[in-house]
Amino acid sequence: MAAWGERLAGVRGVLLDISGVLYDGGEDGGTPIPGSVEAVARLKLSKLKVRFCTNDSQKSRRDLVGLLQRQGFDISEGEVTSPAPATSLILKERGLRPHLLIHDGVRSEFDQIDTSNPNCVVIADAGEGFSYQNMNKAFRVLMDLEKPVLISLGKGRYYKETSGLMLDVGAYMKALEYACGIEAQVVGKPSPEYFQLALKEMGVEAHEAIMIGDDIVGDIGGAQRCGMRALQVRTGKFRPSDEQHPEVTADGYVDNLAEAVNLLLQHAIK
Amino acid sequence: MAAWGERLAGVRGVLLDISGVLYDGGEDGGTPIPGSVEAVARLKLSKLKVRFCTNDSQKSRRDLVGLLQRQGFDISEGEVTSPAPATSLILKERGLRPHLLIHDGVRSEFDQIDTSNPNCVVIADAGEGFSYQNMNKAFRVLMDLEKPVLISLGKGRYYKETSGLMLDVGAYMKALEYACGIEAQVVGKPSPEYFQLALKEMGVEAHEAIMIGDDIVGDIGGAQRCGMRALQVRTGKFRPSDEQHPEVTADGYVDNLAEAVNLLLQHAIK
Repeated sequence: MAAWGERLAGVRGVLLDISGVLYDGGEDGGTPIPGSVEAVARLKLSKLKVRFCTNDSQKSRRDLVGLLQRQGFDISEGEVTSPAPATSLILKERGLRPHLLIHDGVRSEFDQIDTSNPNCVVIADAGEGFSYQNMNKAFRVLMDLEKPVLISLGKGRYYKETSGLMLDVGAYMKALEYACGIEAQVVGKPSPEYFQLALKEMGVEAHEAIMIGDDIVGDIGGAQRCGMRALQVRTGKFRPSDEQHPEVTADGYVDNLAEAVNLLLQHAIK
Repeated sequence: MAAWGERLAGVRGVLLDISGVLYDGGEDGGTPIPGSVEAVARLKLSKLKVRFCTNDSQKSRRDLVGLLQRQGFDISEGEVTSPAPATSLILKERGLRPHLLIHDGVRSEFDQIDTSNPNCVVIADAGEGFSYQNMNKAFRVLMDLEKPVLISLGKGRYYKETSGLMLDVGAYMKALEYACGIEAQVVGKPSPEYFQLALKEMGVEAHEAIMIGDDIVGDIGGAQRCGMRALQVRTGKFRPSDEQHPEVTADGYVDNLAEAVNLLLQHAIK
């Protein structure tokens, strides 16, 4: 690989994944990854632009930011691109009235949305809300529509909590896709539109931006397909086999966010 | 199309689908389709061999047969090929110890199966049993296996009950396939092995057998791919568009089982 100076030249903006990069989630709210609180603080003192880009669809942006602030992170709601507010925007723009199959924790993001007489289904990481009854209700809404529209907040297969692996929204998206014979529209990484939204909100072009994430496909591959550079951290859901992934090679692998920020401050800013 | 005499020449055995051909299901046990009780009786008095071939995975074979007998059908357990006993056989042959994600109504079919320290997952139409917790448990069992084995009793997308459309096992099979990055083994129509089992149990070669069903893909297409002939009835889940299906053309379309049996008794037996 080229020297870091070459790989990081011209970077003006940094997109940070949250879960697995800033902190590890869990029922107790989770814990910060060592060095990440300081790394974010140093990054925000630099000339680089910073934005947070998550696929978390179980918590409102307010709750997520509150949780991170209590862990010591310098982060505010306006700095976060998350799937629920992005979906809310899309629903308004397209005049869609959703049937919501979502977690109660994220319901407040849809307070301003008309959900009467639904003409689409929005599915997010509903956790225990993925009962047979709720799935069947969403299925029937879709089957009653002439052209069924299914919007999925991310398409993750699973994630890790302190209690073990948890099925993510992608699995249930696939169930509804198969039952209805349709394809869902994904709002979240690795959807190009989602990365482009985050870049626009940060005010930086793709070729001047770098993504830092723990998911080799969703974060690294997705960002690179949009013309960005991307670093994978060896924290969160990282597995050693990721460094030999058959389809995706990151622009660099670093032990954690702290190392990524050291490199960026040393090489990206001249 | 050729005359019925030509189309039905040489038929020695008849495979009958149950739901949508013999009766329509529902919470109250369902009701026989008019003429079907007499049609089965006439068929069994003829020289033709008869076997029943269902994808029902929510009821034990005993319960299903009991329900049909109470509706007046001449049917016994030994005449029915159903996915749960077929799966039970496969588990024994391959020394598999399943984690069962199934409906309580079918649990008795697995009484003789060792379910300790599971090395595969068996999924059937669990209905309300498809809770997030149960799905996550099955998912974790699969992810803990070096080579995850998922066996699905059918792969139906949905079925119709008196209360409306119901998600079938296929949707949940797809969810686990996606989450684990694997492909399930299907026991049930349209799997060729399953039709072959039914033919073997009936003691008739494929080219001498005819399938009568209401599902253009699962019954008709599946049977034809095994070298059988197949008639579609215009009852159950039949839709008029089935007669112009882009991929499957039945060897004949009949109003109901009674008409199919009339034709068979007139043309198949010389």
